[in-house]
Amino acid sequence: MEISSESVCCGGRQLVVTHRSSVLGCDMTFGLFLPPQISNAEKGRVGVAPVPILLYLSGLTCTWENVVTKGFAQMACAEHGIAFLSPDTSPRGDGVADSPDYDLGQGAGFYLDATQGAGDGEDGLDWAKNFRMRSYIEQELPSVIGASDFALDMDRIGICGHSMGGHGALTIALRSPQRYRSLSAFAPIVAPSRVPWGEKAFSAYLGSQNREAWLDYDACALLEKTSWARPILIDQGDSDSFLDEQLKPHLFAEIAARKAIALELRMQRGYDHSYYFIMSFMAEHVAFHARQLRD
Amino acid sequence: MEISSESVCCGGRQLVVTHRSSVLGCDMTFGLFLPPQISNAEKGRVGVAPVPILLYLSGLTCTWENVVTKGFAQMACAEHGIAFLSPDTSPRGDGVADSPDYDLGQGAGFYLDATQGAGDGEDGLDWAKNFRMRSYIEQELPSVIGASDFALDMDRIGICGHSMGGHGALTIALRSPQRYRSLSAFAPIVAPSRVPWGEKAFSAYLGSQNREAWLDYDACALLEKTSWARPILIDQGDSDSFLDEQLKPHLFAEIAARKAIALELRMQRGYDHSYYFIMSFMAEHVAFHARQLRD
Repeated sequence: MEISSESVCCGGRQLVVTHRSSVLGCDMTFGLFLPPQISNAEKGRVGVAPVPILLYLSGLTCTWENVVTKGFAQMACAEHGIAFLSPDTSPRGDGVADSPDYDLGQGAGFYLDATQGAGDGEDGLDWAKNFRMRSYIEQELPSVIGASDFALDMDRIGICGHSMGGHGALTIALRSPQRYRSLSAFAPIVAPSRVPWGEKAFSAYLGSQNREAWLDYDACALLEKTSWARPILIDQGDSDSFLDEQLKPHLFAEIAARKAIALELRMQRGYDHSYYFIMSFMAEHVAFHARQLRD
Repeated sequence: MEISSESVCCGGRQLVVTHRSSVLGCDMTFGLFLPPQISNAEKGRVGVAPVPILLYLSGLTCTWENVVTKGFAQMACAEHGIAFLSPDTSPRGDGVADSPDYDLGQGAGFYLDATQGAGDGEDGLDWAKNFRMRSYIEQELPSVIGASDFALDMDRIGICGHSMGGHGALTIALRSPQRYRSLSAFAPIVAPSRVPWGEKAFSAYLGSQNREAWLDYDACALLEKTSWARPILIDQGDSDSFLDEQLKPHLFAEIAARKAIALELRMQRGYDHSYYFIMSFMAEHVAFHARQLRD
């Protein structure tokens, strides 16, 4: 783990960290904001509480950098004493499979473990070799962070994300309710098995014939059987150009209502899919997570 | 004036506007955030107060976009009912003089009216033709904004800026105290006549022999003779790598103290020159301007 840059920000420290990922087979970079409270929370010091973590998963085309420079989570995280962790959206590099399309390959990892090898799919690409963002986010990244010198509380992790990252946050939390304390999303893809972005990515990464395997990465399917019992917050702009074709949050809301899961789906008037939307509600999401991470 | 994009943001609207500048001889683009209060302040409606404006001048290499996406002024401006205007830092285009250096030419207008024509300087470039950012910011931009349909109060304008833009804000306000209600800066160049950035730019734009003319664009020189009487807020990171060679805020503070001008120069511990610094204190600058723009 190598700190490639560090800037004081909102009273805390914004780090950019690079490390070798054995799961993904490439170097990976992530952002880590450490709130001011952590300077008084040296690891292992008796009587000092480590700070909880909010993990943010970004959308298509993004790296660690988009939310760090445009999301403005730092001020709210500094206020509430929360570390903010923002990984990249896929493995990257010359040796990593890719596609010319913005919604497939590098920048579009979809937070799943690909199963399609070089001889399996029509595209002939070996996605299975590197595209294992599920294992990276669930296993390797927490392990890397937990082994650092920073006093982070690995038992208090909240998760959120935007668009493809909202899909990532929902699916990862709903599969492992015991591992995450809080869950929210901005304009998430909730039913990837049934929308073009998801059908294209799942066909390439998981195989077009393996539709049963797709359901392990479909928030609506997971919500049907999850034991997740905490409140969920979703913000969605009603002028988002992807709303009707790709996002369809009502499909998720219908299941939540039937299962009496406390979902607050807020349709935000006039907002689009951009970081103008995310920055507008980021502080409220951080406050939402802070309430549950306190417990 | 053509609105090239519009997004709802923090309850207001973030516009990107393009217009033909006759002063600069090229198309110019600026950002304009309209706070939610303006929807109730239609121009000319009796009994409705138009909203004041905070003009933000950016630093070297920036366009309108940097502060719009990274500065996070929108939330504070929405709270206080202030429009936020963010112009570009120079004329631009194929027919406009330029330099390969980041600190001269396009992206480095230094908020002055160049006097050096094609035959005047060692570089042989015609800076005088397009590089007239002083006239653009002082005259043309307010005129363009004032002629729009938006209910903006052209008699209540505050001005701020970062680095080269801090130099712009200070010099423009100190030359015309009656025209601006409030003044602040982030890490400004306060003595350009005496630091490398300023010496290089002023030599090219104004002529290396015309040192008397330089003083009209030197905040320290202007502070000596200004009638500006309102408080001035300056934030400066003490880990800013440009502090000692290019910025030297103590030179400005010494004159302010001698003249009993209410300057608050806050040395911010650990902060650098980046937008991580700006975003950390933007809300406080907006609140500072709001107090004076209310009067």
